[in-house]
Amino acid sequence: MKNKAITSRDEDFGKWYVDVIRAAKLADYSNVKGCIVFEPNGYALWEKIQSILDKKFKDLGHQNVYMPVLIPESLMKKEGELIEGFAPEGAWITEGGSEQLDERLMFRPTSETLFSDYFASKVKSYKDLPLLYNQWCNVIRWEKETKPFLRTREFLWQEGHTVHATAEEAMAETDRMLEVYRDFFENYLAIPVITGKKTEKEKFAGAEYTCTCEALMYNGVSLQSATSHYFGQKFADAYGIKFLNKENKFESAYQTSWGCTTRMIGGLIMVHSDDNGLVLPPRIAPRQVVIVPIGKDEKIEKMAFEINDKLKQSGITSFVDNSERSPGFKFAEHEVNGIPVRVELGQRDLDEGKICLARRDTRERIFISKDSDIVSEIKNLFEIIQKNLFESAKARNAQKTYRAYNMQEVVEQIKKQPGFVHAMWCGDEACEIKMKEQGGIKSRCILENGEHFSDKCVVCGRKAKHLVVWGIQY
Amino acid sequence: MKNKAITSRDEDFGKWYVDVIRAAKLADYSNVKGCIVFEPNGYALWEKIQSILDKKFKDLGHQNVYMPVLIPESLMKKEGELIEGFAPEGAWITEGGSEQLDERLMFRPTSETLFSDYFASKVKSYKDLPLLYNQWCNVIRWEKETKPFLRTREFLWQEGHTVHATAEEAMAETDRMLEVYRDFFENYLAIPVITGKKTEKEKFAGAEYTCTCEALMYNGVSLQSATSHYFGQKFADAYGIKFLNKENKFESAYQTSWGCTTRMIGGLIMVHSDDNGLVLPPRIAPRQVVIVPIGKDEKIEKMAFEINDKLKQSGITSFVDNSERSPGFKFAEHEVNGIPVRVELGQRDLDEGKICLARRDTRERIFISKDSDIVSEIKNLFEIIQKNLFESAKARNAQKTYRAYNMQEVVEQIKKQPGFVHAMWCGDEACEIKMKEQGGIKSRCILENGEHFSDKCVVCGRKAKHLVVWGIQY
Repeated sequence: MKNKAITSRDEDFGKWYVDVIRAAKLADYSNVKGCIVFEPNGYALWEKIQSILDKKFKDLGHQNVYMPVLIPESLMKKEGELIEGFAPEGAWITEGGSEQLDERLMFRPTSETLFSDYFASKVKSYKDLPLLYNQWCNVIRWEKETKPFLRTREFLWQEGHTVHATAEEAMAETDRMLEVYRDFFENYLAIPVITGKKTEKEKFAGAEYTCTCEALMYNGVSLQSATSHYFGQKFADAYGIKFLNKENKFESAYQTSWGCTTRMIGGLIMVHSDDNGLVLPPRIAPRQVVIVPIGKDEKIEKMAFEINDKLKQSGITSFVDNSERSPGFKFAEHEVNGIPVRVELGQRDLDEGKICLARRDTRERIFISKDSDIVSEIKNLFEIIQKNLFESAKARNAQKTYRAYNMQEVVEQIKKQPGFVHAMWCGDEACEIKMKEQGGIKSRCILENGEHFSDKCVVCGRKAKHLVVWGIQY
Repeated sequence: MKNKAITSRDEDFGKWYVDVIRAAKLADYSNVKGCIVFEPNGYALWEKIQSILDKKFKDLGHQNVYMPVLIPESLMKKEGELIEGFAPEGAWITEGGSEQLDERLMFRPTSETLFSDYFASKVKSYKDLPLLYNQWCNVIRWEKETKPFLRTREFLWQEGHTVHATAEEAMAETDRMLEVYRDFFENYLAIPVITGKKTEKEKFAGAEYTCTCEALMYNGVSLQSATSHYFGQKFADAYGIKFLNKENKFESAYQTSWGCTTRMIGGLIMVHSDDNGLVLPPRIAPRQVVIVPIGKDEKIEKMAFEINDKLKQSGITSFVDNSERSPGFKFAEHEVNGIPVRVELGQRDLDEGKICLARRDTRERIFISKDSDIVSEIKNLFEIIQKNLFESAKARNAQKTYRAYNMQEVVEQIKKQPGFVHAMWCGDEACEIKMKEQGGIKSRCILENGEHFSDKCVVCGRKAKHLVVWGIQY
């Protein structure tokens, strides 16, 4: 009963991934190189992600704003590391209104420059602080190799930008937002993540330090899924964000930024989906339940719509599929689309006093009494599915997490079966570069609380400072 | 008691407008020429507008999607009228990833090209139709003269794009969406609009015809506030959107598009606000009620939060201002920000068994019994305010609506006191051009059902065909 439009996941993971996207109508290629079209099913997922995160941000006191999409080159250049980091991926507007522009404008790759420029004009005193802003927008990074959702030239994201009166407060904000992301990944997307600091080499251009959520895909490749940066006073110094502190002295402010993107949709697919298409955790599924009346029977159809009303009233997003297609065709389509629960209403089952609930994750069919409280049955099933998806991913990650004591072990393990390789590191960038030369193995993050199981750097053998997770990445 | 930060509206309307925007913290100028920063209060208005319209669109069966922001020049050029109309305002990306691009990419000024290109690959049969799509995004039009919200180089909007199997169905969609806008303007924004077709000269580049909602600002200047276009088969022919119709023959599809933008926020300000700042209809206000406990009294503060909880539970967005500032300062701030209703809790009033409700629109203070059902009192007051704002604007529009029988009358009236001038027109573009040469007077739209009160063209005196509304515009 495998979906024929979809390549087997274990046979060709890359092809499987694209097949799922196409079959579930999440996105399509466009005639704009490196950019995709977000189709209704894909954009609905993004809207669902937005609605959950936006509420979390607002509950913590963040306000949404919108900055211009174009950044004058001179403004971009005020902070040296940022422009150095982003210039190679820049998209430049050089002509406007039929004229050559005096100054090139960069399509925003990220908006620290504009936020900092704005903050400089607004922040006068410690009484104005903190400012906690966020924006939802599009950005461009001129990637050479692209992959739908995971890496596209234009993508959609949110970028939070905050200013604080003290370093402690800004660092606490960096931690707080990392925790918001971790919670979101684990409790909504059902994707287990590891969190920690990036190394100096891998941190965001212009940050003092970067914290990250790293997830492992089905095939053992890592995905940097969200980041939270502490800037210290770097941007404040460059853009002149000065305030009168409580001691009545001028001081540069302390900043953070944090973001996550539409690549999360790629992560969702690569963690949970299978050879029959998309699999979605109920808490993130835009459509949670489909009700399929089997056969043409007025009474059964009526029952379908009654159940639909009940589910909707309780906040479940459900719909009835009473179209003129065969049940088998409908079942396959709703499976491909990742609807978490299918309610089948068949005459024979009903005669026996039963209703069938089909789970998308395990493809099991469960029978409940037609007189039972279907809303609580389904809500209960949602919890079970949500948990199962998370626990399955967690168990898989555990299988793909290894320890290594020398570089050869790391390389062999990644070759054999990629995943998260724990290994000790001396802190020297030269060792990171050496590791990267081995088939692109990169540090994912530094684990603060992990067991330092060796005192030697996995690369050079000198004294180790940090426990680092290594892997290959999208 | 006039707000000193705000120029008088009757003295200098242009300066008043910018003063209100700054005082209410809706937007700020940016260091990107022609672009503004949407500050929290301004962006919250846009979010409120989005949430209402988005629900209306979805209830009618539209789905949200997202197309790339960059359009290759060759793709843009496939439909001749569109590129001709938009090229002079184009912003072009010519460099990406440190390299000169082989082909210029236009920052989308509108997305008919990409939608049509996409539809061409999806639509095979009449069974695939209609497709009803919408997207929320940013666009750029390289304007020379800009004004916050009303005309900026980058702005935010929604653009709906639909494909249909018949001309009738597509025309019905054009009408249906115009009606959605009219309803939204009148019943949510409390802005009375006139609707009708644009003349050939003023229609959207590439459309068969364009329908418009036109609003009149406080100073009698018109604002084109939303448009709905019927494309017939123009884009379908140019981009190859062909489908097998019911007769099993290939046919080009029929399309529409419709949009409205962040300029609506400018319209809201220019219709309702006054010398004390922003005035917002309750149905569109992001924050509807502020509760101000007067003096430091624990019991009164407790009462404030109890009322706040009650209001919130009933779906009203309210907040308590118990900050350390004087009541006068708070009142002025919440007035500038356009909070529709202020609840004042003062000891003296409470001792007399009263609570004061202050209306922002009329600045009246109403006393209700402290034992009355405050939720229904406030909901009732919302309706009164909403109606008052709409009726006031309507009455003002009536005063600024005139009839003219010859061009001199039109010109003199517009000079004396601008507004909507009704006058008959022969249908000849030459007459429109002559009118425009008189201080930029433009046709706003053709009124289908108005009384043809003269049979002579207001410009040339030849036989009149249409009743046209004329005016000057933002």
